[in-house]
Amino acid sequence: MAEYNKVTTEIINELEKIVPGRVMTGENINPDYARDEMPIYGKHMPEAAIEVLSTEEISAIIKICNLNRIPVTVRGAGTGLAGGAVPVAGGVLLSTIKMNKIISYDLENLLVTVEPGVLLNDLASDAAKHGLLYPPDPGEKFATLGGNVSTNAGGMRAVKYGATRDYVRSMTVVLPTGEIARFGSSVSKTSSGYSLLNLMIGSEGTLGVITELTLKLIPQPKELISLVIPFEDLESCISTVPKFTLNHFRPQALEFFEKEILISSEEYLGKAVFPRVCDGIEVGAYLLVSFDGDDMDSLLTTVEKAAEMVLNEGALDVLIADTPAKIKDAWAARSSFLEGIEEQTKLLDECDVVVPTNKIAPFLTYVKSIEAEFDFKVKSFGHAGDGNLHIYTCSNDMELDEFKKQVDVFMNKIYEKATEFKGLVSGEHGIGFGKIDYLANTLGDINIRLMQNIKNAFDPNMILNPGKVCYKL
Amino acid sequence: MAEYNKVTTEIINELEKIVPGRVMTGENINPDYARDEMPIYGKHMPEAAIEVLSTEEISAIIKICNLNRIPVTVRGAGTGLAGGAVPVAGGVLLSTIKMNKIISYDLENLLVTVEPGVLLNDLASDAAKHGLLYPPDPGEKFATLGGNVSTNAGGMRAVKYGATRDYVRSMTVVLPTGEIARFGSSVSKTSSGYSLLNLMIGSEGTLGVITELTLKLIPQPKELISLVIPFEDLESCISTVPKFTLNHFRPQALEFFEKEILISSEEYLGKAVFPRVCDGIEVGAYLLVSFDGDDMDSLLTTVEKAAEMVLNEGALDVLIADTPAKIKDAWAARSSFLEGIEEQTKLLDECDVVVPTNKIAPFLTYVKSIEAEFDFKVKSFGHAGDGNLHIYTCSNDMELDEFKKQVDVFMNKIYEKATEFKGLVSGEHGIGFGKIDYLANTLGDINIRLMQNIKNAFDPNMILNPGKVCYKL
Repeated sequence: MAEYNKVTTEIINELEKIVPGRVMTGENINPDYARDEMPIYGKHMPEAAIEVLSTEEISAIIKICNLNRIPVTVRGAGTGLAGGAVPVAGGVLLSTIKMNKIISYDLENLLVTVEPGVLLNDLASDAAKHGLLYPPDPGEKFATLGGNVSTNAGGMRAVKYGATRDYVRSMTVVLPTGEIARFGSSVSKTSSGYSLLNLMIGSEGTLGVITELTLKLIPQPKELISLVIPFEDLESCISTVPKFTLNHFRPQALEFFEKEILISSEEYLGKAVFPRVCDGIEVGAYLLVSFDGDDMDSLLTTVEKAAEMVLNEGALDVLIADTPAKIKDAWAARSSFLEGIEEQTKLLDECDVVVPTNKIAPFLTYVKSIEAEFDFKVKSFGHAGDGNLHIYTCSNDMELDEFKKQVDVFMNKIYEKATEFKGLVSGEHGIGFGKIDYLANTLGDINIRLMQNIKNAFDPNMILNPGKVCYKL
Repeated sequence: MAEYNKVTTEIINELEKIVPGRVMTGENINPDYARDEMPIYGKHMPEAAIEVLSTEEISAIIKICNLNRIPVTVRGAGTGLAGGAVPVAGGVLLSTIKMNKIISYDLENLLVTVEPGVLLNDLASDAAKHGLLYPPDPGEKFATLGGNVSTNAGGMRAVKYGATRDYVRSMTVVLPTGEIARFGSSVSKTSSGYSLLNLMIGSEGTLGVITELTLKLIPQPKELISLVIPFEDLESCISTVPKFTLNHFRPQALEFFEKEILISSEEYLGKAVFPRVCDGIEVGAYLLVSFDGDDMDSLLTTVEKAAEMVLNEGALDVLIADTPAKIKDAWAARSSFLEGIEEQTKLLDECDVVVPTNKIAPFLTYVKSIEAEFDFKVKSFGHAGDGNLHIYTCSNDMELDEFKKQVDVFMNKIYEKATEFKGLVSGEHGIGFGKIDYLANTLGDINIRLMQNIKNAFDPNMILNPGKVCYKL
């Protein structure tokens, strides 16, 4: 167990020399810095907080913290859902939110270089001006790219284009020693030693501080069509999913959700777009599917075949959104699921499990079968196309301790079932400190020991983001 | 520096208990096990060699070797080009060549599970029966998949589909302690702790022994067209390459080669397909390009636009191969470049550098500019689409020591230039022991120290594939 020191006045003075006027302490610290978007994991204030501006000053700050064994936690926009950016051991919090410059495009190699605090939304709209697409598309558009890389964020388009990992070419990193390193390069393929780049991706700020990223872009597909597909119940909805793969339809996005989730989202937005009843039958669940491509004719052929397939599989209807306005409407509801749930729920926790797509149906059937054992409600939606499910436990009347106790029993059961189906604890939100035990239980001792050894290899004094991923405090 | 012990009679007896009748020693060892396909790095016989058959027996063998500090080197088909599978420290060599079963397909998730000794060629033809494609397509079709994963092999189709790394979902690994671990899972996205899976990919057998692989497949594209494009010289040929990206043509493969290489390959095959003269102009270099897709009309539109573009850029002609027989002919020559060079050359070494695609032209201009300083000939070809160049130093009359000395000076110069262009030492062949110094020189101390720390984290007794990647003997 690592021992940490407190941030003394002497250390504050040393930090002030590096970033004059920017070392916040006590009540001057932004209270949001104590938490992320999943408040169930508690609030932990840092002893000092700094909005950093450059690789060099981060390096200088970390050298001081490493020498004095002060915990350092890095935070982007704070949109995480597993406590990854919460400074649970106190110490110094570094916010990258002002390192938000899109530095340069390389249009001959389709690359963009950014600071880590650039928001996903800002890169998306900027890249579009060049006719380019940054394929990763997590639901939370106001996350930073540094945060996305740190959790290997997935999102809607992962089913066709892959997750964030597939779009990171290189990064500048400040190591826990304060040294500045560069991992990866601008090139698209490499066999040049262990992939330190891939080790950093998804390491949730525990191995180094990302201070610059070079990301791969693709030409923006010219055409896009979305389908809204209502089903009578979740079972018939989900059992259709593997047919998309079997028929080689290659959707760009393939989402599912229960009606309850849709309703809370549409209430949150104040606009209802999805049908609630089809031919007198109450809708129970939906698929929301997008197809993209450069050729409208071949896209329409795929859409027709897909529509025929889902109707054969029991879909109640197929609504086609083929104009930008209709597509925007259809996806607006999907983008506000979490906000919708949050607004209507006092106590909330979530599971971000990922299972093979042909195991989604039996997995959700299992989840439903144990729901009655608990006092909270279970609501689910997710990325059907890649098996990544978001299962929310929601209560407005339970006591916090009882809620936490019951959720822990529930989570252990469903993670165990997911593991049985060759799934993993998190598809895209990460482990943070909220899911350390579940990760350890499901991966087993050998993998956790290797991860801890790697953590030691990078961070001998264990100062960077303590208490996360594979190391409990 | 690690200290190793010799393989004693007692140890042979212990190994015999695990794999009776399969522990080869002395003259019973296959002499090929002393080398790979690049003999310039010398021959090193192991003290014992075993053709292994299962995860469990590999685990038992490695436990004995770890306890006794005996080096263990794993070898697939031995087609490597950097000495990665050469047992430079002696000890025990494990050949996976008989672990060659394609275990199962999962057609709902488009996955295949294989033993590590399955040959690339065998998986390709087997997957085709299911209408599926394993996209990685290294030139050497008789390499094992275990070897491909260990070097993150790239190949012709990497420009569109990515390298081997992008197609590995999970693996079973015997660690240097003899423990059996499982990295990754069947799922397509994950944020569940450090990516031990990605660390293993490209680690050249130094961190663990891969004993099973689950790989991702894609639906076989329905249509394929190849173009043979002759140019007067290498410069005009290469300067055309970035235009494919700028115009968003997305070729499946985009190869370049000098005429000399083509001639030796066609002589090796005994069949000449490519034009040597166009309209009275002597051809100096070629592009060989493939486009694939599911829709012939849109494919033809792309081919027309690409043909127009290259003719505008100075191509002498565009020959279209649009039947399986013509496509096979065009690519046969490309697949035999190395064999063609080998047959005509006594002393051979190679550089597998990768640079951003818009730096290929200035990089090759630099290489040409220093060629006259040396007594060997320089021949080059490579994957123009992703910047991965194969530059061969060839001599039939130099003394070995002088050749090696001059090659070292040459390589240092061109690696330095590649690094200046943000390139890396190896695009797909790996570091092995032939390129350790070049990797260390170009990556610098911090990255190499992190790699060495990771090696220690996995292999405290340093028994697995000693003297490779980041650790010199």
